Amino acid sequence: MATIKLIEYEAASPEVRAVYDDIMATRQIDWVNNFWKAIAVQPELLRRTWQGVKEVTAPGALDPLVKEMLYIAISVTNGCEYCINSHTAAARKKGMTDEMLSELMAVVGMANQTNALVTGFQVELDEVFRNGGRQP
Amino acid sequence: MATIKLIEYEAASPEVRAVYDDIMATRQIDWVNNFWKAIAVQPELLRRTWQGVKEVTAPGALDPLVKEMLYIAISVTNGCEYCINSHTAAARKKGMTDEMLSELMAVVGMANQTNALVTGFQVELDEVFRNGGRQP
Amino acid sequence: MATIKLIEYEAASPEVRAVYDDIMATRQIDWVNNFWKAIAVQPELLRRTWQGVKEVTAPGALDPLVKEMLYIAISVTNGCEYCINSHTAAARKKGMTDEMLSELMAVVGMANQTNALVTGFQVELDEVFRNGGRQP
Amino acid sequence: MATIKLIEYEAASPEVRAVYDDIMATRQIDWVNNFWKAIAVQPELLRRTWQGVKEVTAPGALDPLVKEMLYIAISVTNGCEYCINSHTAAARKKGMTDEMLSELMAVVGMANQTNALVTGFQVELDEVFRNGGRQP
Amino acid sequence: MATIKLIEYEAASPEVRAVYDDIMATRQIDWVNNFWKAIAVQPELLRRTWQGVKEVTAPGALDPLVKEMLYIAISVTNGCEYCINSHTAAARKKGMTDEMLSELMAVVGMANQTNALVTGFQVELDEVFRNGGRQP
Amino acid sequence: MATIKLIEYEAASPEVRAVYDDIMATRQIDWVNNFWKAIAVQPELLRRTWQGVKEVTAPGALDPLVKEMLYIAISVTNGCEYCINSHTAAARKKGMTDEMLSELMAVVGMANQTNALVTGFQVELDEVFRNGGRQP
Repeated sequence: MATIKLIEYEAASPEVRAVYDDIMATRQIDWVNNFWKAIAVQPELLRRTWQGVKEVTAPGALDPLVKEMLYIAISVTNGCEYCINSHTAAARKKGMTDEMLSELMAVVGMANQTNALVTGFQVELDEVFRNGGRQP
Repeated sequence: MATIKLIEYEAASPEVRAVYDDIMATRQIDWVNNFWKAIAVQPELLRRTWQGVKEVTAPGALDPLVKEMLYIAISVTNGCEYCINSHTAAARKKGMTDEMLSELMAVVGMANQTNALVTGFQVELDEVFRNGGRQP
Repeated sequence: MATIKLIEYEAASPEVRAVYDDIMATRQIDWVNNFWKAIAVQPELLRRTWQGVKEVTAPGALDPLVKEMLYIAISVTNGCEYCINSHTAAARKKGMTDEMLSELMAVVGMANQTNALVTGFQVELDEVFRNGGRQP
Repeated sequence: MATIKLIEYEAASPEVRAVYDDIMATRQIDWVNNFWKAIAVQPELLRRTWQGVKEVTAPGALDPLVKEMLYIAISVTNGCEYCINSHTAAARKKGMTDEMLSELMAVVGMANQTNALVTGFQVELDEVFRNGGRQP
Repeated sequence: MATIKLIEYEAASPEVRAVYDDIMATRQIDWVNNFWKAIAVQPELLRRTWQGVKEVTAPGALDPLVKEMLYIAISVTNGCEYCINSHTAAARKKGMTDEMLSELMAVVGMANQTNALVTGFQVELDEVFRNGGRQP
Repeated sequence: MATIKLIEYEAASPEVRAVYDDIMATRQIDWVNNFWKAIAVQPELLRRTWQGVKEVTAPGALDPLVKEMLYIAISVTNGCEYCINSHTAAARKKGMTDEMLSELMAVVGMANQTNALVTGFQVELDEVFRNGGRQP
């Protein structure tokens, strides 16, 4: 169980309920997952975090499924179990197949390996890669 | 400078040269970046790592540009400067715009924030997310 | 140099300038540090991030200097050089002495050691600590 | 269960008992938590670690509650569940309210986000922040 | 449970079975642990990962038990529970005593502490340590 | 440069000098590296940290060179540049060859990859590995 009390819809203030309502409307579901009920302990934190998640997951230059897979990759690297499971579930709902998941994991595995090798040998950056290849 | 001596093409063994040649042929470039010259200190490590990178970056269920962006997201979370710069450069060559990069970073930022909040409050996984939403 | 072009005040859109102005007014300074100029590549990201930083650093249940020291502790654990230096500078401006900094680091050091020992031996949580000691 | 056998008071050597006694006396409690019973497998490690924890948590330039909150922030960033729960419980005993905990988490969340953004864009340190703002 | 379905020997393709057979023959055991059954979702990933693990754990310049202990140290720092438990078990089979394990953990603990202190104070590298002490 | 002023031998208090003297005597060298000069800002932190490092690097159940390599592996995983360079230099002084270093890195690379794959797929621990294979 969480280190603070989850705030259920029935017990929520109007301010918190408004966010819960927007989460459900945006996602077209009729329930709110534990994460939001936990951070609702501070309504401002709930509002701001939902605003951020809503904005970054909205359609944009990147595909929503790609964004979910980025979330998974980061959650794996941070070792966040809740996040890995919830975003894997979300990605599946958006169309991720087992084949795509395994390919994603193959990248996650190799990236963590090459990150470690580069760091371990303290490899110096090639001139052409400076500034991420940006033209000054 | 790296903690081991980089192995330049001219000084490389035939086994190492064969890998360098395959890297250049696969990427259609005429040079090899420092990472490979560093791990060439152990030809088996070079061969195996290149094999892995070649396989995971080949066309598959995920788009090559998506894979580069996954690489960037992981490298940021691991704090690997060389990797962030080299994969940002690689993603740009594959078509990543500044708009896509900033949207990618917006996801990286929010994911690191929500990962921390979930962990900080020790939020319990919702039943529906178990096994990443996989049907048993 | 950053992997995207920093946006200077003179070149900024009215939307970005408004955030820069609020940063300078809130902090009572006449310049904006590189972090904001980098994320200004996406005005929405700039606005949202500044809103968050402004809210969490405002007076509240925790002292502003305590918050800066929390920032330092997290930045050290994440290995973010820019963040360590900028927040150490900010904490100094808010009154952190060398003695306080060294005591902070002593905690950071011990916490990273005991975190590793607990994880390394896979120590089971004592019943009394469940839910962070929260009464159900 | 831990990867080594916990050493209970009854089975402990005089050297280990002396540390257990000091832990209980210092904390004014009549039991010892699992962490100490695990590292007691090496009495020298137990003694040295307790000495360090005792020193850094003693009254000093920083408030004991602030130190507990620093411990929480670091444990969250490291993803150590035992540590998050035990230090949250300890902080509560020292007076941390739900409001303080949620404010702490708001800082932890934002810091992890801005750390990631700084690293992701490879933002260059502003001259004024060099050496953490220390005058040379 | 895992986010993908484990592939048991009976249900495995000939390609996957061949790897399982090699794992069992190399380790002189008659079963395959869950890790391999999970990554078998992508036969290429299974084959490549086993090839890598087989190569790095083979006799070489470093002792096999030393390699297992390195694995433990890294897994602790990454906070991977499965990995800590499985490699601790593997190291025990190769002769690691409780005394060796506790000494290993003592190093893991101190290294994480000194890593944090170096980073926290942003200590500049001594000239003599450049390039890991390698003669240019 | 560091975020606090380094304390040189000439400017050090008798308490700090005593530790510096012990470091030099133990290591049979005539200088002290920057790390110690940084943490000397708090003599108690200096004394306690040196005591810990001295104890864990002393001859014991593990070979001193093995301990240095463990330090390198952890430092790589934490991304601590100072630590990677200084411990690589120390390991070389104790006999580590390029072949041993590259084999160490091969393990570091594979371990980071398999850690990520286990976490990414949320693989469940095999019963036989529970408690690190310890007999209850």
